[in-house]
Amino acid sequence: MNMQTADQPTVRAAVLGASGYSGGELLRLLAGHPRVQIVAAGASERAGLTVGDVHPHLAPLGALPLEDLGPDVADRCDVAFLALPHGTSAQLAPALLERGARVIDLAGDFRLPAEEYPGWYGFEHPAPEWLGKAVYGLPELFRADIPGAQLVANPGCFPTAAALALAPAARAGMLGAPVIVDAKTGVSGAGAKPTSTVHYAQTEGSVRPYRVASHQHTPEIERALAAVGGGDVRVTFVPHLVPAVRGVLVTCYAPFAGRTTAGDVDRVIHEAYDDEPFVRVLGDGTMPDPKRVAGTNVCEIGIGVDARTGTAIVAAAIDNLGKGAAGQAVQNMNLLFGFDEATALPVLGVYP
Amino acid sequence: MNMQTADQPTVRAAVLGASGYSGGELLRLLAGHPRVQIVAAGASERAGLTVGDVHPHLAPLGALPLEDLGPDVADRCDVAFLALPHGTSAQLAPALLERGARVIDLAGDFRLPAEEYPGWYGFEHPAPEWLGKAVYGLPELFRADIPGAQLVANPGCFPTAAALALAPAARAGMLGAPVIVDAKTGVSGAGAKPTSTVHYAQTEGSVRPYRVASHQHTPEIERALAAVGGGDVRVTFVPHLVPAVRGVLVTCYAPFAGRTTAGDVDRVIHEAYDDEPFVRVLGDGTMPDPKRVAGTNVCEIGIGVDARTGTAIVAAAIDNLGKGAAGQAVQNMNLLFGFDEATALPVLGVYP
Amino acid sequence: MNMQTADQPTVRAAVLGASGYSGGELLRLLAGHPRVQIVAAGASERAGLTVGDVHPHLAPLGALPLEDLGPDVADRCDVAFLALPHGTSAQLAPALLERGARVIDLAGDFRLPAEEYPGWYGFEHPAPEWLGKAVYGLPELFRADIPGAQLVANPGCFPTAAALALAPAARAGMLGAPVIVDAKTGVSGAGAKPTSTVHYAQTEGSVRPYRVASHQHTPEIERALAAVGGGDVRVTFVPHLVPAVRGVLVTCYAPFAGRTTAGDVDRVIHEAYDDEPFVRVLGDGTMPDPKRVAGTNVCEIGIGVDARTGTAIVAAAIDNLGKGAAGQAVQNMNLLFGFDEATALPVLGVYP
Amino acid sequence: MNMQTADQPTVRAAVLGASGYSGGELLRLLAGHPRVQIVAAGASERAGLTVGDVHPHLAPLGALPLEDLGPDVADRCDVAFLALPHGTSAQLAPALLERGARVIDLAGDFRLPAEEYPGWYGFEHPAPEWLGKAVYGLPELFRADIPGAQLVANPGCFPTAAALALAPAARAGMLGAPVIVDAKTGVSGAGAKPTSTVHYAQTEGSVRPYRVASHQHTPEIERALAAVGGGDVRVTFVPHLVPAVRGVLVTCYAPFAGRTTAGDVDRVIHEAYDDEPFVRVLGDGTMPDPKRVAGTNVCEIGIGVDARTGTAIVAAAIDNLGKGAAGQAVQNMNLLFGFDEATALPVLGVYP
Repeated sequence: MNMQTADQPTVRAAVLGASGYSGGELLRLLAGHPRVQIVAAGASERAGLTVGDVHPHLAPLGALPLEDLGPDVADRCDVAFLALPHGTSAQLAPALLERGARVIDLAGDFRLPAEEYPGWYGFEHPAPEWLGKAVYGLPELFRADIPGAQLVANPGCFPTAAALALAPAARAGMLGAPVIVDAKTGVSGAGAKPTSTVHYAQTEGSVRPYRVASHQHTPEIERALAAVGGGDVRVTFVPHLVPAVRGVLVTCYAPFAGRTTAGDVDRVIHEAYDDEPFVRVLGDGTMPDPKRVAGTNVCEIGIGVDARTGTAIVAAAIDNLGKGAAGQAVQNMNLLFGFDEATALPVLGVYP
Repeated sequence: MNMQTADQPTVRAAVLGASGYSGGELLRLLAGHPRVQIVAAGASERAGLTVGDVHPHLAPLGALPLEDLGPDVADRCDVAFLALPHGTSAQLAPALLERGARVIDLAGDFRLPAEEYPGWYGFEHPAPEWLGKAVYGLPELFRADIPGAQLVANPGCFPTAAALALAPAARAGMLGAPVIVDAKTGVSGAGAKPTSTVHYAQTEGSVRPYRVASHQHTPEIERALAAVGGGDVRVTFVPHLVPAVRGVLVTCYAPFAGRTTAGDVDRVIHEAYDDEPFVRVLGDGTMPDPKRVAGTNVCEIGIGVDARTGTAIVAAAIDNLGKGAAGQAVQNMNLLFGFDEATALPVLGVYP
Repeated sequence: MNMQTADQPTVRAAVLGASGYSGGELLRLLAGHPRVQIVAAGASERAGLTVGDVHPHLAPLGALPLEDLGPDVADRCDVAFLALPHGTSAQLAPALLERGARVIDLAGDFRLPAEEYPGWYGFEHPAPEWLGKAVYGLPELFRADIPGAQLVANPGCFPTAAALALAPAARAGMLGAPVIVDAKTGVSGAGAKPTSTVHYAQTEGSVRPYRVASHQHTPEIERALAAVGGGDVRVTFVPHLVPAVRGVLVTCYAPFAGRTTAGDVDRVIHEAYDDEPFVRVLGDGTMPDPKRVAGTNVCEIGIGVDARTGTAIVAAAIDNLGKGAAGQAVQNMNLLFGFDEATALPVLGVYP
Repeated sequence: MNMQTADQPTVRAAVLGASGYSGGELLRLLAGHPRVQIVAAGASERAGLTVGDVHPHLAPLGALPLEDLGPDVADRCDVAFLALPHGTSAQLAPALLERGARVIDLAGDFRLPAEEYPGWYGFEHPAPEWLGKAVYGLPELFRADIPGAQLVANPGCFPTAAALALAPAARAGMLGAPVIVDAKTGVSGAGAKPTSTVHYAQTEGSVRPYRVASHQHTPEIERALAAVGGGDVRVTFVPHLVPAVRGVLVTCYAPFAGRTTAGDVDRVIHEAYDDEPFVRVLGDGTMPDPKRVAGTNVCEIGIGVDARTGTAIVAAAIDNLGKGAAGQAVQNMNLLFGFDEATALPVLGVYP
């Protein structure tokens, strides 16, 4: 699948957690990257099987073995993607980093300060010394931080969409409180493990709020907005599971601050993203739809307003496995290694 | 299908707009009502066909003809259900009323003051003299008004859910501003007419905000809350189309007023509905799911709180064709004619 | 939920396997039966919970406890519905029968001769002496056998549809070999237990043949056709899992025997079923759709023909949890106890 | 989107019927082709709009205008893809061909002999002189014919899957009669035009046979099998619409001829395709799933057997817009212009 030529440097990549949905998407994208060689695919419970066994849609990569990888995979890779459960990445990453690998963590393990982990994630962070060194890999907001990083905290799916939607206006001081983020997600975000929650018979026809105002992505959204200069904003965040596979839509509500107008919000969002390859700001009140960006690394943003109540309404749609996980991780890798940021990242959706 | 016995009075019912989804659901429910005789089914474009032609799932009623009904249907019915497009009901209802029929209007034509119609519905109301006589048929909030009415404005699907969710706390003065109502609906609410919007290929995998802060149900929600004593509340309302057929979920956000606590909101909601046959208040943070009430006249309500931001979160789920349309219309008919309010109205969902 | 009056006899019913989908549907239907009292609901792993815990859509029955029921439930019920896994019914039924309860088994444990169980079901039948006493509860084909039975083998979902589709022409000697039955089913037939097979993310957009020519319903179809006089027909049966919840469609192909014409097949099917309350024979080449019979006990049958190849094509659609399981079980109960066969069985689908 | 370099020849391509689903998929694939320049996009009713207006998922191509193209588009293109309604291609293609363009027709207009069109397609063929010059563009079966062609009849979705499934065994004389092809398709095959048939509310939960034994793809399947040496086989073909967007699965049934065994069929299928880049023959009874090939040009084939009845069962899955339409058209274009046959054609599915 790789098309690199002899004179190009090649990045040796390992994917840990390769048997899950994000892991599969990483393999799909990396297989098309001209400067990447996939050197290892990790899976603990399913070690001994092959990629083809667990991801039949990746048949051309099928012979790649799934291994029970530990820190010494660092000796044979330049970058390790950790598509592991929350808590596992934090255990493993330090040893990989110490052996010299660059690490892109798709879990939430390096996105918050240490003191937030017990409350939001339910564990004491085992490697707080690395938290300060991790950069938050949302390129459209923090691009300059990424190339020099050894450890990238790849953002969560909801924070990616919500921060992209709200950051420009927040940075410009255009938004007041309260900020409400009402999110809708397909079930792939819940992972490949079968549970009642993702049973087809219980999902078709269902719309379910979950972790109401207690989802661990809440402080991540707040931190991203603070980091762009949005101040100490508090966000009420409620995700909903809808009958879809890929896709996250966030609908964000905030009162206009001061004399801000809808036009102001529209302007700063366009200014922020009109040159970005992976953000599409829609015009004329058109609203985003995650279906249109399925399979891509694109974020669509739509801007509305409730003039009667003085409320800005900004909605954003992504593919949670693309821009919300594996796509953004590859985008970060491109930045880490000096490749064109858009390499191997689809921008044309597979639609309908 | 009817099981009435000789000694029971029988209500003669006509369903106008019988070829649509709400019309079909009315026929399904009325066919099981022991005191109702369906005397006429109206459909303008499809007149000449039968109920069986357009609703094969209602085969036992199949021979019932679809007629192009005008005001004189009032001479052969006691009650006319108008499941007609917005604007058409307002044209037809006065003549039916003047001939003595009772009218239950499932369109939005008698829910607002005359001056609101041009802005929200796009037409000048043709019968403003009837607007003051119409009662708003949301029994759990306005039950006492209904039995004596000649004209019932059957509530919209979103207002039914949002008003049931918010009314108890609004009435008790527990909610501040702003009030955000983020709604998710299946596509049956868009009607049986084929359009790109409801094309399967464009709906599967899609989540689409629409009529952002401009949906005609906005003032209806506000009026219902005002009518229960909630004051002059303004609501920011954004509906979303999700890949489902039946079902509406509203997620409502409002700051606690004054020293209101989550417990206070919980208490007034329980007090309001614990004796209601068609409202289920869920406990322990359980959230509602429209799938569980599919095919029924039930509204499920779940209560959450964001203590960090002082926000009350109340969600409600209904079947938009049931409690959000035909079911509630039959409930209103039961009240109009003195039947047990729950007659012929399912409370056990068809699940999964 | 029950509406029985003092002067009617009441049947005391127990539902074993009440926490599954068929169990839930049995509770839903029985709750609406005027002559039934649900006296016990059994669930082994989930004993100690209530019906409301596992079936929130059945909230009005919510307080009913789930018990770990054994043979002594026979002492407090007149009829036991066994909605248990294959193999478990055969263990439990004899003790229930010996204590005097009538048993309706929704598993496959009493549908075949003893010698077929090892090959098709993978177990040696533990109670072969009861196999000869069980009647096959497909009323439209074997109605006369049912009222006097103590043990009813409630047919499988695929055999119900396939036998109803093929029996009239098979009985009349109109069909040659080979007989192909290509079936499509929603995932509720796979049960409530979460597995990869029924994960939403793996089911949406998927169509999967399974147990190709090796499904245990194959000999059941053949036996039903033989029992109506269709001779020693062999059936090639391939089921497919489609992205739907309820519903089975079978498409049956067989060459016309001798000088049989399409009109002959059409005639015998109409003759067989035109007076049946739960079978709808469609005309003019209209084909059945399981969506139209969702929530009901109805079977729709459509008749086609390939004149170029001399092939009869008969398709049948049912709700696998209705006519394919719980609905038919209640129909059998009605026959066992002398009630009107149609009591408490919906014929109007919940559509769309 | 194009990555061609100065020293490569560039093919100028026009897509007529660019506003439909196949047209959109053609644009998506061609945009990624390093040697193609999209010079024109045609759409009659929507001329004046842009590609971005009708295909927002193709935003990077958005400015491309939709034009009402006639024969003179041949003057500015090397190849014209006709993704037009049946009957329209046959009107337009001759003029394009006469002006020197190569034509790849995705409609059914050049796949059958002239005498078949009135019966199967309902029109008299307007250009029978071109029928004999058209080559049938199923490369895995007729690769040698394609490079020199001026006019390629791109196969239909069902014939692609059915012919790939059946051709090896048919060619080897291993199959007897009757041959049954039972197909399941997502709704994108019905096109982008909104109709009741593709209304989401009528499709979710539905499985519908249609054009039973009368679908126009029937003779196309038969001709493909005859052309590989399968003899004068007659096929009974019944397609079914299932609740999915992309994807076709065909399940093919045929008796083994003579002393053919399952192993023989397995062997010839492997021999036929093991070196093909776009056909994956599954082993060990694994069955294909169109979900796994969504977005790709791949055909998955699975082989089963009913030893009891002596029936070979071969199933094949494709993306109807990929290998079943646009993907195969690009594959044919690659052959026409001497490019690597796999250029710009995805082989890794977007899953889940």
